[in-house]
Amino acid sequence: MRRILALIALPLLTGAAPAQKPLTAAEVLAAAPAAAWQPIHPDDLLVMDFANGGRVVIQLAPSFAPVHVANIRALARSGWWKGSSVYRVQDNFVAQWGHDEKGPPLPSSVVKPPPAEYWRSTKGLAIRPLGSSDAYAPAVGYAGGWPIAYSPKQGWATLPHCYGYVGVARDLAPDTGTGEELYAIIGHAPRRLDRNLAVIGRVVEGIDRLSSLPRGPAPMGMYGDAARNVGIDRVRLASEIVQAERPSFQMLDTSSATFGQIMRLRTNQADDFYRTPPTGIDLCSAGVPVRKTPAA
Amino acid sequence: MRRILALIALPLLTGAAPAQKPLTAAEVLAAAPAAAWQPIHPDDLLVMDFANGGRVVIQLAPSFAPVHVANIRALARSGWWKGSSVYRVQDNFVAQWGHDEKGPPLPSSVVKPPPAEYWRSTKGLAIRPLGSSDAYAPAVGYAGGWPIAYSPKQGWATLPHCYGYVGVARDLAPDTGTGEELYAIIGHAPRRLDRNLAVIGRVVEGIDRLSSLPRGPAPMGMYGDAARNVGIDRVRLASEIVQAERPSFQMLDTSSATFGQIMRLRTNQADDFYRTPPTGIDLCSAGVPVRKTPAA
Repeated sequence: MRRILALIALPLLTGAAPAQKPLTAAEVLAAAPAAAWQPIHPDDLLVMDFANGGRVVIQLAPSFAPVHVANIRALARSGWWKGSSVYRVQDNFVAQWGHDEKGPPLPSSVVKPPPAEYWRSTKGLAIRPLGSSDAYAPAVGYAGGWPIAYSPKQGWATLPHCYGYVGVARDLAPDTGTGEELYAIIGHAPRRLDRNLAVIGRVVEGIDRLSSLPRGPAPMGMYGDAARNVGIDRVRLASEIVQAERPSFQMLDTSSATFGQIMRLRTNQADDFYRTPPTGIDLCSAGVPVRKTPAA
Repeated sequence: MRRILALIALPLLTGAAPAQKPLTAAEVLAAAPAAAWQPIHPDDLLVMDFANGGRVVIQLAPSFAPVHVANIRALARSGWWKGSSVYRVQDNFVAQWGHDEKGPPLPSSVVKPPPAEYWRSTKGLAIRPLGSSDAYAPAVGYAGGWPIAYSPKQGWATLPHCYGYVGVARDLAPDTGTGEELYAIIGHAPRRLDRNLAVIGRVVEGIDRLSSLPRGPAPMGMYGDAARNVGIDRVRLASEIVQAERPSFQMLDTSSATFGQIMRLRTNQADDFYRTPPTGIDLCSAGVPVRKTPAA
């Protein structure tokens, strides 16, 4: 019989109340009140359409990298990425795209170089701590719909380089990268990059269009041959797309009771599959639920 | 200009000795004495050949899951996987293979079910602690060429579910899985699985042959259509292959001075790329160097 590494969340049978199974994280999420879901603004959704018909949608994080995000919006609105491509796919690391060779002139509003928005102040952030240990930061948690690694003492907070998160490629420091070349993480979280590059958002649809691409044979996963590059037809903000065709997403409010309940259940995962339920969870495994906006 | 997210290890210039750049981890590895490299026994290498010409080589870990590994060797020697396939690829999780439907009878020596080799005693392990915090275990480090999560107090040690690590699929507990169906991690380390499944080794060649496969459209990444399955021609132990064609690998001795030096450099990564060098590293990012045996 085919074994399925069954990770369907089956509820735990407790001795105390055998007739009543506690809800699983998936069940809590499915039962979340509408108010626990926050709409994602269409100016915060970057829609990438590939020449092969694939689509990748990225949620931007203006509260963490405002100048980089403004640059990216300007590049999208000017159609700057038309005819660009994914030219680098390095296994267990990143897929990277932009104009492989010289691109068109940058829109005049693009700030070059932008400030090093590699972290921000914890001031103004309502942080929900995750409570797990982390190898890279004194503390980890959530704020405003995003996972953060932070230092309560030093007062910095940064978006982590988790799977599916998107950053701005750059050359050696002090360069910061304009935003014209972006990368998405397609492997184990390379958290060493935290606070060294600007993370500007996360893929909310179509990460497999990047993660399942052939790896590049040249150093650092470069395709090294323009014929192999994966063509990008256009990149737009969702707000530029007519309402009827516009992608629309919601994220779970990380300050909601529902989110807290889900994180407790994910941290102390217990169901019929687990013999030794884990009692912790790392920031990049925990995640923030995002979904397509349900039909009204 | 194309920005390259330059992660080439460039040495740090220190004020104290500006004329002498400290070695990078890559340079230390390249200069490692031959004695720091340990041969991997050909009975510990599982060689999977795909119908499409691809090859994946897995190093087995008999010191952690001896009965599972004995089962896997028996399955390989009997040619049991001939005509099997990769039938499940779930994004940011696993690629899984075996006989999608009913397979041939198991060799008589296969123990069914094997004991739950989900962890072992720390007794007899010479452990080199990594020294970083971990969300899932009280301590992490290395022993006998493998990364381990362990409890010095409770005396258990387990192979972690890192990228490229291979485990034995099973049904619900108390089932343990014979070894006929295996999975490799192709995303962020799902460490919640540690101590709940038998990790039997790691991919040392060809992980991209699994990680870049199309994701399955059915629940849990199942292809759900035998025509999509990725055929496996045969799976052999390296010891069954004639010497001239036999793949041969070495791993860096995790008790060597070279390994300690590399881990210190990787933990405190500092070069011209980093503005804020990290001061920790998580177990699954640290890794153990493995290479093809150099020509004599």
